[in-house]
Amino acid sequence: MRILVLHGPNLNLLGRREPEIYGRTTLAEIEEELRRLGRELGVEIESRQSNHEGDLVDWVQEAEGEFAGILLNPAAYTHTSVALRDAIAGVGVPVVEVHLSNPAAREEFRHVSYVAPVVIGTVAGFGKESYLLGLRALVGYLKAH
Amino acid sequence: MRILVLHGPNLNLLGRREPEIYGRTTLAEIEEELRRLGRELGVEIESRQSNHEGDLVDWVQEAEGEFAGILLNPAAYTHTSVALRDAIAGVGVPVVEVHLSNPAAREEFRHVSYVAPVVIGTVAGFGKESYLLGLRALVGYLKAH
Amino acid sequence: MRILVLHGPNLNLLGRREPEIYGRTTLAEIEEELRRLGRELGVEIESRQSNHEGDLVDWVQEAEGEFAGILLNPAAYTHTSVALRDAIAGVGVPVVEVHLSNPAAREEFRHVSYVAPVVIGTVAGFGKESYLLGLRALVGYLKAH
Amino acid sequence: MRILVLHGPNLNLLGRREPEIYGRTTLAEIEEELRRLGRELGVEIESRQSNHEGDLVDWVQEAEGEFAGILLNPAAYTHTSVALRDAIAGVGVPVVEVHLSNPAAREEFRHVSYVAPVVIGTVAGFGKESYLLGLRALVGYLKAH
Amino acid sequence: MRILVLHGPNLNLLGRREPEIYGRTTLAEIEEELRRLGRELGVEIESRQSNHEGDLVDWVQEAEGEFAGILLNPAAYTHTSVALRDAIAGVGVPVVEVHLSNPAAREEFRHVSYVAPVVIGTVAGFGKESYLLGLRALVGYLKAH
Amino acid sequence: MRILVLHGPNLNLLGRREPEIYGRTTLAEIEEELRRLGRELGVEIESRQSNHEGDLVDWVQEAEGEFAGILLNPAAYTHTSVALRDAIAGVGVPVVEVHLSNPAAREEFRHVSYVAPVVIGTVAGFGKESYLLGLRALVGYLKAH
Amino acid sequence: MRILVLHGPNLNLLGRREPEIYGRTTLAEIEEELRRLGRELGVEIESRQSNHEGDLVDWVQEAEGEFAGILLNPAAYTHTSVALRDAIAGVGVPVVEVHLSNPAAREEFRHVSYVAPVVIGTVAGFGKESYLLGLRALVGYLKAH
Amino acid sequence: MRILVLHGPNLNLLGRREPEIYGRTTLAEIEEELRRLGRELGVEIESRQSNHEGDLVDWVQEAEGEFAGILLNPAAYTHTSVALRDAIAGVGVPVVEVHLSNPAAREEFRHVSYVAPVVIGTVAGFGKESYLLGLRALVGYLKAH
Amino acid sequence: MRILVLHGPNLNLLGRREPEIYGRTTLAEIEEELRRLGRELGVEIESRQSNHEGDLVDWVQEAEGEFAGILLNPAAYTHTSVALRDAIAGVGVPVVEVHLSNPAAREEFRHVSYVAPVVIGTVAGFGKESYLLGLRALVGYLKAH
Amino acid sequence: MRILVLHGPNLNLLGRREPEIYGRTTLAEIEEELRRLGRELGVEIESRQSNHEGDLVDWVQEAEGEFAGILLNPAAYTHTSVALRDAIAGVGVPVVEVHLSNPAAREEFRHVSYVAPVVIGTVAGFGKESYLLGLRALVGYLKAH
Amino acid sequence: MRILVLHGPNLNLLGRREPEIYGRTTLAEIEEELRRLGRELGVEIESRQSNHEGDLVDWVQEAEGEFAGILLNPAAYTHTSVALRDAIAGVGVPVVEVHLSNPAAREEFRHVSYVAPVVIGTVAGFGKESYLLGLRALVGYLKAH
Amino acid sequence: MRILVLHGPNLNLLGRREPEIYGRTTLAEIEEELRRLGRELGVEIESRQSNHEGDLVDWVQEAEGEFAGILLNPAAYTHTSVALRDAIAGVGVPVVEVHLSNPAAREEFRHVSYVAPVVIGTVAGFGKESYLLGLRALVGYLKAH
Repeated sequence: MRILVLHGPNLNLLGRREPEIYGRTTLAEIEEELRRLGRELGVEIESRQSNHEGDLVDWVQEAEGEFAGILLNPAAYTHTSVALRDAIAGVGVPVVEVHLSNPAAREEFRHVSYVAPVVIGTVAGFGKESYLLGLRALVGYLKAH
Repeated sequence: MRILVLHGPNLNLLGRREPEIYGRTTLAEIEEELRRLGRELGVEIESRQSNHEGDLVDWVQEAEGEFAGILLNPAAYTHTSVALRDAIAGVGVPVVEVHLSNPAAREEFRHVSYVAPVVIGTVAGFGKESYLLGLRALVGYLKAH
Repeated sequence: MRILVLHGPNLNLLGRREPEIYGRTTLAEIEEELRRLGRELGVEIESRQSNHEGDLVDWVQEAEGEFAGILLNPAAYTHTSVALRDAIAGVGVPVVEVHLSNPAAREEFRHVSYVAPVVIGTVAGFGKESYLLGLRALVGYLKAH
Repeated sequence: MRILVLHGPNLNLLGRREPEIYGRTTLAEIEEELRRLGRELGVEIESRQSNHEGDLVDWVQEAEGEFAGILLNPAAYTHTSVALRDAIAGVGVPVVEVHLSNPAAREEFRHVSYVAPVVIGTVAGFGKESYLLGLRALVGYLKAH
Repeated sequence: MRILVLHGPNLNLLGRREPEIYGRTTLAEIEEELRRLGRELGVEIESRQSNHEGDLVDWVQEAEGEFAGILLNPAAYTHTSVALRDAIAGVGVPVVEVHLSNPAAREEFRHVSYVAPVVIGTVAGFGKESYLLGLRALVGYLKAH
Repeated sequence: MRILVLHGPNLNLLGRREPEIYGRTTLAEIEEELRRLGRELGVEIESRQSNHEGDLVDWVQEAEGEFAGILLNPAAYTHTSVALRDAIAGVGVPVVEVHLSNPAAREEFRHVSYVAPVVIGTVAGFGKESYLLGLRALVGYLKAH
Repeated sequence: MRILVLHGPNLNLLGRREPEIYGRTTLAEIEEELRRLGRELGVEIESRQSNHEGDLVDWVQEAEGEFAGILLNPAAYTHTSVALRDAIAGVGVPVVEVHLSNPAAREEFRHVSYVAPVVIGTVAGFGKESYLLGLRALVGYLKAH
Repeated sequence: MRILVLHGPNLNLLGRREPEIYGRTTLAEIEEELRRLGRELGVEIESRQSNHEGDLVDWVQEAEGEFAGILLNPAAYTHTSVALRDAIAGVGVPVVEVHLSNPAAREEFRHVSYVAPVVIGTVAGFGKESYLLGLRALVGYLKAH
Repeated sequence: MRILVLHGPNLNLLGRREPEIYGRTTLAEIEEELRRLGRELGVEIESRQSNHEGDLVDWVQEAEGEFAGILLNPAAYTHTSVALRDAIAGVGVPVVEVHLSNPAAREEFRHVSYVAPVVIGTVAGFGKESYLLGLRALVGYLKAH
Repeated sequence: MRILVLHGPNLNLLGRREPEIYGRTTLAEIEEELRRLGRELGVEIESRQSNHEGDLVDWVQEAEGEFAGILLNPAAYTHTSVALRDAIAGVGVPVVEVHLSNPAAREEFRHVSYVAPVVIGTVAGFGKESYLLGLRALVGYLKAH
Repeated sequence: MRILVLHGPNLNLLGRREPEIYGRTTLAEIEEELRRLGRELGVEIESRQSNHEGDLVDWVQEAEGEFAGILLNPAAYTHTSVALRDAIAGVGVPVVEVHLSNPAAREEFRHVSYVAPVVIGTVAGFGKESYLLGLRALVGYLKAH
Repeated sequence: MRILVLHGPNLNLLGRREPEIYGRTTLAEIEEELRRLGRELGVEIESRQSNHEGDLVDWVQEAEGEFAGILLNPAAYTHTSVALRDAIAGVGVPVVEVHLSNPAAREEFRHVSYVAPVVIGTVAGFGKESYLLGLRALVGYLKAH
């Protein structure tokens, strides 16, 4: 069972970018921990990051038939991308949405999410733990369905 | 007379994606029918699809001098892309907007269109027929102007 | 197969009223072209116009059993008539909505449509061609269902 | 004591129109039941239906001096008619408003009522029973005042 | 020079309807005073009243070529009729809008006017004097243009 | 067949509280009339009142299996309680909502109702008669289903 | 009987300022015509202009006991001055509001008026005639009360 | 280390209430699984449920000094309780918020959360797994701080 | 003359809870100062605190006949409780509202108050002094009426 | 210690202006009582009134170094003056805001306050007592800081 | 070529007022630097400051014929003054708007500008440099037109 | 010191696109003038243009360590890109925002800017001069910090 992990825009800056909000862990460290937990749960992890909305849409589409599920941190595109929402709704691959910080405690425009209504569930606010809990949630869902 | 047909994000999924909304026809079949109608109306058709907003903006710009008109299904970018609107307003090529489904009968956020105010007209809700009617409308407009 | 064409308020002024928005074609000329296209498509056309919301509601209701489909330009009642919407939703006759101009490029209050969510589809912005394309769309729909 | 029963637009379709919302009882059956209950309560019933806003306004005005009260189902005009509201506020005849379905459980635009603030009270959601309960309420009110 | 005076819905109730808002003068008395002032200003007056939106639209259309100007009290249709607005914008006859009461001092929904942006000017709040001042304004305008 | 009558906050003040809005009948008198009508309709009535949102939620839950239906005047909690709405949606007991006064004719914040979309129907504006009509509506519904 | 005429901000620019909106008449010419009409109606006119909100508030206050009525063109302060509104509401002098142009046909922010709810009535859209009609309205009102 | 688990209104209905939304697991089963996971993570679990907003506020306050953290499913009070928010902000005990269903995919009024801005993070949409993941998140947080 | 002092939710945390907003004084200290000032003003003070909306409603109701006035800090229920508002409007006991902090300088949702329109007046922003000033205001009011 | 008392627009009308809202006390009487209380509290009072927003801004600025605190009734400028707010925020002099009436119980536009977020606290609704309580609050604050 | 520099309310406090937002430079220093740059660009500078909206309106009007252009920092009146906007639109003198701070990064009410739509352009956020850049922009514009 | 100049979507059309709004200067000419001014100010200029949101995000990120500052014209992405905002906030490179036209004088949706709150300052409305002034502002800022 293979899981696709998608990181949205600016997440490649992790560890450097606004550390008081996003913490000091780098994306590489998160991916390393995800792979370790993946092995424990018996799933294979593949990670990709892009600042391009279209890349994320392409990858969600291509996941069909290749991956059992998607762990997605849409970052800024959470609040502006109908295209990403339509891609998730259009393919048959279950998606779990994760956020490092807690969008509800930030600016007004971060309270709206186009993606949330078409995913299975959301984990937000626990820093890198959001990814690990999200992976558990996704694998649990896949094993139950 | 050459016509550029542009398909926005997720339209490459047609036939697979949410068939209760978008029907079972594939994009290839639509393009085949467009070419057939194009021959009947005496115009040449070129089709492109992308999930990237920037690609659509590039193609609208490049159409100037190359194509007599554009048949555009902006899909999700209908509701979020000011860049696409500005490109249409900025070039001298007439654009007809088409939609497979009827956005007015769907979610609230699909009722807003950035593109509609800068196109000649819109055809929405008739499945693949929207494209064929849109092509007739565009060619009719071009012959009259 | 008989088609009912309904024209909403002020469309009897066509050719005279704000020609920079609505063009110089008269309603009589549009109806003549619709009849000609109707003969080509093998359908019989009957046209009516009224400035009274109640007349339009009556006619939509009476169409059941008499007409195979309705081609409707609701004009100003597009934006204010829940009664017309309920009539369309209440009878079993398919309706196609047409507009001469492009409401999305006009005043804010013309962006709201009560009728759009209960019709098959919409054609807007092509002047008298909107009617002809709308008739094609309606006949195409009726032959396919 | 005579009671005027007014039915708004599309209620002549009852029994045929969207039966999953409005039930299968026809307007004739409702009027028959109202006459039966009227006899029991000692009042005479006269019923009228129109799809024309202006007819309903005319009838409300004409009721003054002719009828002791009005039982009104304004249907779609509930949400759009200031003229009907002004007529009710302008005559001295008490009005009870009834609805077959429960507007609060339907589309957003059905949650606004121009009529409600100028009637005695409202009965909504009980199908044809809304009329019978409304008649009881109206007669009770008239006997008490 | 002939002037058409149009009275919207419920104005036939004048003198009876909510006299604390609209005063005790009847429509007949207002029309008598308008005719008297008309003679003084050298214009002929014709008055009509209807509770039907469509009648008002019909009459505005028919005024073209028959009347030099229209004095209009749209009453409740001020706030709901796009059809009346389109009729005024569509014919070449100047319109002056009058109101007996001051809508700005009443309910919120009376603060919106579809008609105001397409008339020459407005006189509101002076009871029957609003009509007389409006007639002066209209005749003054016609003589100056 | 047993019916549970629930009175929301401040209804214990009836007869004393703002009598120009709520009338001079006390809650005891209303309950007496409900019991009398209940005997006539062949149902047993049990009444409870509380100022605590949680009590109303508890009682709606406990009604399941104990009562055939609930007659509910949610009073102020109409406009603020999602918990009460969820309780009604969550149990299998039909609920009829009643109001002494007509909320649509009062402050803006009383026009919103969380409860209305999950009840069978509503009776509002008839003073104590709202309860009696509501009981008839509820018993009628229960006998028909 | 003395009438105070108050002109709000920028009206001293009349004749120069945006003549396509405000016409070419100067304030001096308007005041000359007002004095002439005043003599005809038997009232004495005193005119003042200021760009200072506070001056207008002062003058409204000082009018009490000195003037029988106020003819006011609040100009830009129409849309922002609660202080002017409170002054009018606070003194016992009747006020008629006039506008040269038709605010309803201009920018959105000109559709809101703080002053309108506390004046007797409004005349708008007739250029300098608005002042003359407003003076007639005010004198008529004063003679009738 | 002791953890307090708080269940908001109607959660005692779990397994019975709207199972298409909330699933068929009962609250007792969830608590059993939480205790099992708690033993694995080395923490002691205490669970309470109430339909009363005030009870939840009391318990959050009393947790200080007694519990290391709170796992909270505020249910309907998520959307209406400022008091619960203030209690969480007022005590020094970290809170993790969980939801069985995905509020973002439900009614508009469930998209607003008073609680989210004052908790560490949120887990939503995974049925009973939301609780188990939330407990992991909370214990992880407590161990890291 | 007896005065009832009511403290809303979380005020029992005073001195501990967010001291940068609410200060370090405890509720006991405030009550002590109130009693001292009460003796000076010749009134007897009784204080109660609850986190339950229903308790506050009960106490407001029970005050009638027992207390001359109520000094109320509704805390979080200021912004969400229609029930508390209705209770205050329903009893004949004058209420003065106090707040420790200045709600206008905090989150948007704290700017709305259901209680303010039905109290005599408000004192906000002076920490514990708000209570003392509020007591003076209430006693002053009671002595003057 | 000197205190500056500032009265906003129309407060010079006190005693005459809308006495059902503002009472019959004049500004001179209020200032007399303030001076008496000032002597008791050991502070010197200086009072000024203006209908000019700019005067109030000037006076707030000039208070720095001259006065220990400002007691301000901004009246109508409460709801429209960003300049007054910026002046208060820009100088180092503490300000207490007072209102004779209770703005929350009046028109919607009086519920917004630009000044409240930058003052220490507010006293509203107690007529002239608002000033006296406000002075106590201000002096108390100054002695404590 | 003479340039008028206008400073709106509270700018006379510069250097003292909220230095963390506005910096420590005084108005005198800014004016000194403007004069120096003016000499370099070959223009004469005259500066004025007022806290009175009306003064700014007067000065904008008087600039016509006296000054080639206006450099305006409207400060708080940016967000509330329609009168200032009308003055700018009404005279023929080009205006450049400058702000020391970046209004888009401050409170919501500072995001609305009445002045911006009628000026040539805006420079904001660079402290005193905003003035210098604005002067360059204005002189550049004047030389080009 | 190196400066990165970024041009957003459709700016490659400059000189051709809607010249009545954007002028006739081409992007090449602007870049030539920027380089000339750069030499004068002692900085090196590198320019890039893209229609792809993701490219702009990539380039902002890559600027860190390579460039001292960014001069950004985000064009259409000003109004829709949270990703671009997050990139600017996430890197340590100062950004100055420039616009050729004045967005405040155009469509409503151009009044919202996601980018403005995270830049140093903005220059808008001066055509190509906006770039030159922006470069001066940026270099001035860099020299001062």
